[in-house]
Amino acid sequence: MSLDTLSVTRSFGGTVHVVRHDSLATGTPMTFSVFVPPQAESGATCPVVWYLSGLTCTHANVTEKGEYRRACAELGLIFVAPDTSPRGDEVPDDPAYDFGQGAGFYVDATQAPYDAHYRMERYIVEELPEIVASAFPIDRDRQAITGHSMGGHGALTLALRHPGRYRSVSAFAPIVAPSQVPWGEKALGAYLGPDRAAWRRHDAVALIEDGARVPEILVDQGGADTFLERELRPDLLEAACREAGIPLTLRLQQGYDHSYYFISTFMEDHLRWHAARLTA
Amino acid sequence: MSLDTLSVTRSFGGTVHVVRHDSLATGTPMTFSVFVPPQAESGATCPVVWYLSGLTCTHANVTEKGEYRRACAELGLIFVAPDTSPRGDEVPDDPAYDFGQGAGFYVDATQAPYDAHYRMERYIVEELPEIVASAFPIDRDRQAITGHSMGGHGALTLALRHPGRYRSVSAFAPIVAPSQVPWGEKALGAYLGPDRAAWRRHDAVALIEDGARVPEILVDQGGADTFLERELRPDLLEAACREAGIPLTLRLQQGYDHSYYFISTFMEDHLRWHAARLTA
Repeated sequence: MSLDTLSVTRSFGGTVHVVRHDSLATGTPMTFSVFVPPQAESGATCPVVWYLSGLTCTHANVTEKGEYRRACAELGLIFVAPDTSPRGDEVPDDPAYDFGQGAGFYVDATQAPYDAHYRMERYIVEELPEIVASAFPIDRDRQAITGHSMGGHGALTLALRHPGRYRSVSAFAPIVAPSQVPWGEKALGAYLGPDRAAWRRHDAVALIEDGARVPEILVDQGGADTFLERELRPDLLEAACREAGIPLTLRLQQGYDHSYYFISTFMEDHLRWHAARLTA
Repeated sequence: MSLDTLSVTRSFGGTVHVVRHDSLATGTPMTFSVFVPPQAESGATCPVVWYLSGLTCTHANVTEKGEYRRACAELGLIFVAPDTSPRGDEVPDDPAYDFGQGAGFYVDATQAPYDAHYRMERYIVEELPEIVASAFPIDRDRQAITGHSMGGHGALTLALRHPGRYRSVSAFAPIVAPSQVPWGEKALGAYLGPDRAAWRRHDAVALIEDGARVPEILVDQGGADTFLERELRPDLLEAACREAGIPLTLRLQQGYDHSYYFISTFMEDHLRWHAARLTA
């Protein structure tokens, strides 16, 4: 397991590392960024926040535009931003922005030709934590997960599927019910096949309906987000959480869209929310 | 004078506008961004901070990566980010990153073929304030200017050349003595011709030596900036300010480079520094 450090840059008293490594899960090189806050420089372990990005993104979007470093430096949080899919000439792709490379949906594909490389759940849940822990002082007893859009789907489903692993989960404008919306139907159908029972294991609303639980959820959703009604459907998450008794803080932020101008505005709130739960 | 609004996006309780207009100064379309803080939404005028970007940048770099909105929203500052040069097929260019389009150096060129379009001083000092004031509630009695690298050069020289216009001036890793460094010699030679007396009117250190004054200056400079010794030379500004009795706060930030990871770290400090002087 060798790590190729692409850059190390000082920021907000901490350090941004961009790292590439050969992934066993995906069979491709994968690139991620890690922000290490000043609190870790003495060698102390720090809690870690995993941030899963949305369609079309790489690690770079949130790394450059997410405005998370000031709060992470204050709160002593390590922040990791992985890529959204395997990439490369040998990786099946699609001309559409919402499927294929840049759109891994945080599942392990079971269908050819995607099953050879699209193994993003294994990558995020099993391999990447080992890789990161080998080089950075993360406290694996104090992990949080969040994400945006497709990455909000990833955060919610991975937290629901791996109870106890993440102490807290939040999301920005998440896809909450991929089985019921066009982005999700396209991706889950191709990666997991036509049997919708398999989709339910990767659909936050269905997972909750089927008995999965997390202690609580924080979601921010822009009111001017053009994907709100067709793809995101926070109303479905609200109904499922109400039925299941999961405390959901769902904040509709009037006037905000789906972009990093929205995410960066509420990033600090999410990080403080996670920090309170990670250090409790 | 017609403004073409390319986008209006909610962020940190205020609004990011990206605007294109036909410039009389440059004879080309020009694009800039404006952040309007929540304090302005009642119709009240707000102080304005002009941010001049560095080589290769457009308005977009700082708009996306500068992390200025949270502080501007708190402090009630309007933040304007112009482009760094005229652009277009008819605008003379150069294959190098440090000259031509993306590298206007905030001067009005006097030499053909550049003099037809490269009129960035007139654009920033005369035309853009009128354009911005026509659409946004800036208080023209309370203006500050800052910038990065080539834009730090722009901020310092425009403040020195137009006394009283800007109440405060700061810079991130500025080119302080373009007459004495390769980036500046190349650009000023091509835009202003071989007579170095003309260069002195667009060189912060030379302007100070020749008697120009500002009340005080704040500069942050990364200690790991690879351009520090060859192109930036803060030591020359320090010597000129000492000789002239201009209070200079020059902070060498150990370990920081020339990127937006550096700028974003110290942006809030600069905005608070300007706000204190704009509202005094």
